[in-house]
Amino acid sequence: MKALSRAAIIAVGSELLTPSKLDTNSLFVTERLNALGLDVIAKAVVGDVRDDVAQAVGAALARADLVILSGGLGPTDDDVTREAVAQALGRPLAEDERITAHLRARFAARGFAMPMPENNRRQAMVPAGAHVIENTRGSAPGLWIDHDDRVVLLLPGPPRELKPMLTALEEGLLRERASGTPLVRRVVRIAGRIESQVDEVLGPLYKQWAERQPPIAATILAMPGSIELHVSTRQGSAAAAALALDEAVHDAVGVIGLDAYSTDGRLLEEVVGDLLVDRGLHIGVAESCTGGLITSRLTDVPGSSRYVDASVVTYSNQAKSDFLDIDPALIAQHGAVSEPVAIAMAEGIKRRAPADIGIGVTGIAGPSGGTPDKPVGTVVIAAVVASRCRARTFRFYGDRSLVKFQAAQSALDMVRRMLLE
Amino acid sequence: MKALSRAAIIAVGSELLTPSKLDTNSLFVTERLNALGLDVIAKAVVGDVRDDVAQAVGAALARADLVILSGGLGPTDDDVTREAVAQALGRPLAEDERITAHLRARFAARGFAMPMPENNRRQAMVPAGAHVIENTRGSAPGLWIDHDDRVVLLLPGPPRELKPMLTALEEGLLRERASGTPLVRRVVRIAGRIESQVDEVLGPLYKQWAERQPPIAATILAMPGSIELHVSTRQGSAAAAALALDEAVHDAVGVIGLDAYSTDGRLLEEVVGDLLVDRGLHIGVAESCTGGLITSRLTDVPGSSRYVDASVVTYSNQAKSDFLDIDPALIAQHGAVSEPVAIAMAEGIKRRAPADIGIGVTGIAGPSGGTPDKPVGTVVIAAVVASRCRARTFRFYGDRSLVKFQAAQSALDMVRRMLLE
Repeated sequence: MKALSRAAIIAVGSELLTPSKLDTNSLFVTERLNALGLDVIAKAVVGDVRDDVAQAVGAALARADLVILSGGLGPTDDDVTREAVAQALGRPLAEDERITAHLRARFAARGFAMPMPENNRRQAMVPAGAHVIENTRGSAPGLWIDHDDRVVLLLPGPPRELKPMLTALEEGLLRERASGTPLVRRVVRIAGRIESQVDEVLGPLYKQWAERQPPIAATILAMPGSIELHVSTRQGSAAAAALALDEAVHDAVGVIGLDAYSTDGRLLEEVVGDLLVDRGLHIGVAESCTGGLITSRLTDVPGSSRYVDASVVTYSNQAKSDFLDIDPALIAQHGAVSEPVAIAMAEGIKRRAPADIGIGVTGIAGPSGGTPDKPVGTVVIAAVVASRCRARTFRFYGDRSLVKFQAAQSALDMVRRMLLE
Repeated sequence: MKALSRAAIIAVGSELLTPSKLDTNSLFVTERLNALGLDVIAKAVVGDVRDDVAQAVGAALARADLVILSGGLGPTDDDVTREAVAQALGRPLAEDERITAHLRARFAARGFAMPMPENNRRQAMVPAGAHVIENTRGSAPGLWIDHDDRVVLLLPGPPRELKPMLTALEEGLLRERASGTPLVRRVVRIAGRIESQVDEVLGPLYKQWAERQPPIAATILAMPGSIELHVSTRQGSAAAAALALDEAVHDAVGVIGLDAYSTDGRLLEEVVGDLLVDRGLHIGVAESCTGGLITSRLTDVPGSSRYVDASVVTYSNQAKSDFLDIDPALIAQHGAVSEPVAIAMAEGIKRRAPADIGIGVTGIAGPSGGTPDKPVGTVVIAAVVASRCRARTFRFYGDRSLVKFQAAQSALDMVRRMLLE
């Protein structure tokens, strides 16, 4: 049988065509397929309309040898995926007795007095020749359909049902049928540089990577506060690919230096957390314009109680005095958004928490509050690590939440650098 | 000429087929198209491969009368959208002299000494018959192609270029060609209920709405910590639709009651912020397991310095005593995750901030730290508003960040209810 190598993903659901909802299942599906060596060549979203779903399946089968659909497998009239796939493949629907039995058992187990509603039997009407994929977390079974050399796979929409089913398939049927040269990917996360600088210093490496046999592909993704270098390759085996990427990442970090903060998927708050655990240090944050975001990110990391004891959000000047012992005269002299005040905030929380490291952040997140001297986006960050102290004034662009995020990112990065230097 | 009514959106870019990147332009495009009365019937993502893009355009044109592509309009070999559309429509490529002139002028204005690189001229090679849509923020012009009664629209990928171009089209060409019965949408946000409860109480209204002429469509979206009721309709005019939805939202809120916290797009932190401003009250938060998230959300709202002065994150027991005057004996007697401690935290921050309202949150966000009595996800929330005090023990499900979010949501909602009662 031909190995599967080109996949298309179709998300079914009219709610996914509204302005407030995205199909995110496809990210997980893509990751798992890439790990098996399959490329995703196209994704589609269609509504709960049989002809639309059928057309999407037909179009996908013209270019892909694996088509994965998610959603539309429930018991209601809105759930059209089974019928649409049968239509696209030119197969009749037939009742699968195992599914009916499974549904009855599931229904009985839930302790309802009444028998299973007849419309649940819709879930047992499947395209002829389909194999059932067990769903341990919901009533909608998955379906695997071999069609010539190609495969159509139907999975339920809820992520908590889809994910374990796909994981089970990855260990079983899908692995057997996949082309077997996995695409391996690694991400280098970078702080304190802009995209074009990264592009420039990496130029010679890009060229080397492209000329390798097999080549290593590289892409830069730029986001506010972070740049990501994605490298990927397909080699004889996953281990060979991992080795090639180890080398590529090593070379990239050699060129980028300390600005590369993560090569293993960790976020900046995890990197800082691991450094604090390694060194047995505790951290406290005095936040003004970031409003608690830095501490919230630090405590997003499991086990962060090992290094976070106390932080304060001091929005008003009075709070800066009350909680951090800041002399009102200092604020009167320099303004609340100033390096002397940021340093005093860092020192104040370090003493009061008490902690080994103190961070102070004060700025103007906007949209109002800016002045010609200190426009919206001006943020002063100070860090005190043991007896070392650093302060820097930043100017961030974007809306309020982007300013907050970039300020948090820069504060965490400042601590990271001070711990590594 | 036939009015446009059914749209398909195609995002072009191989990076959008990786596990870390989603097409988000389509959300904005959908919103603007809906406002003009167009339905989005399908979305697709394809890589930078000419045949794949061409096939997607052909498939979209079979069912939609407006096809909007984003991305792939740059000057490099990877930018294949122009060629792919020409191929799909069976049109030759022809140089548009206005584009060449525009690119040369743009290049000259940037003050480079050298002439425009020849590969930039690729951007001037467009499908015959295409009209240029000006791009004020980048080099890639948009293209509008009338094809029989249908329209194919090519827009650049960067949101900051795409958005103003689409907005300009919405005022101009697109409005002229749209079917003219705008789809109007409204969202009711609901806290403190589960999806099936909302579905049940709204059952009779769903039926009334569906039987109206024209009907009102309703969908429930359930997320951890919030449920959204989306209602939408298409009437003779946008004003008539808005009126019909006003009535529907009014009836829904009548049934849902105080659990409906927003009918105008505001998030819970905005609703609480507005209530605080109305009443001239200040709020302070003592956060343990939420780690600063509640205060960060409160301060995401512009103008929140009117009601937030100070909050504390007291992760350790010692910090609870130091910053909130909590008697260590209280913690020893009841445990840190208990209603007496949560109340003492709320009272402590209310007194210390000082504020009119204090919130105290203590719990076990996981993944470790649970006990048989107090499993992971146990969170105690207390709120003190003037002389009123409320405390409640919740049990949330999901990972650490979901527990944090749901706890923040429940804390803000507790304050909202106490202010409204």
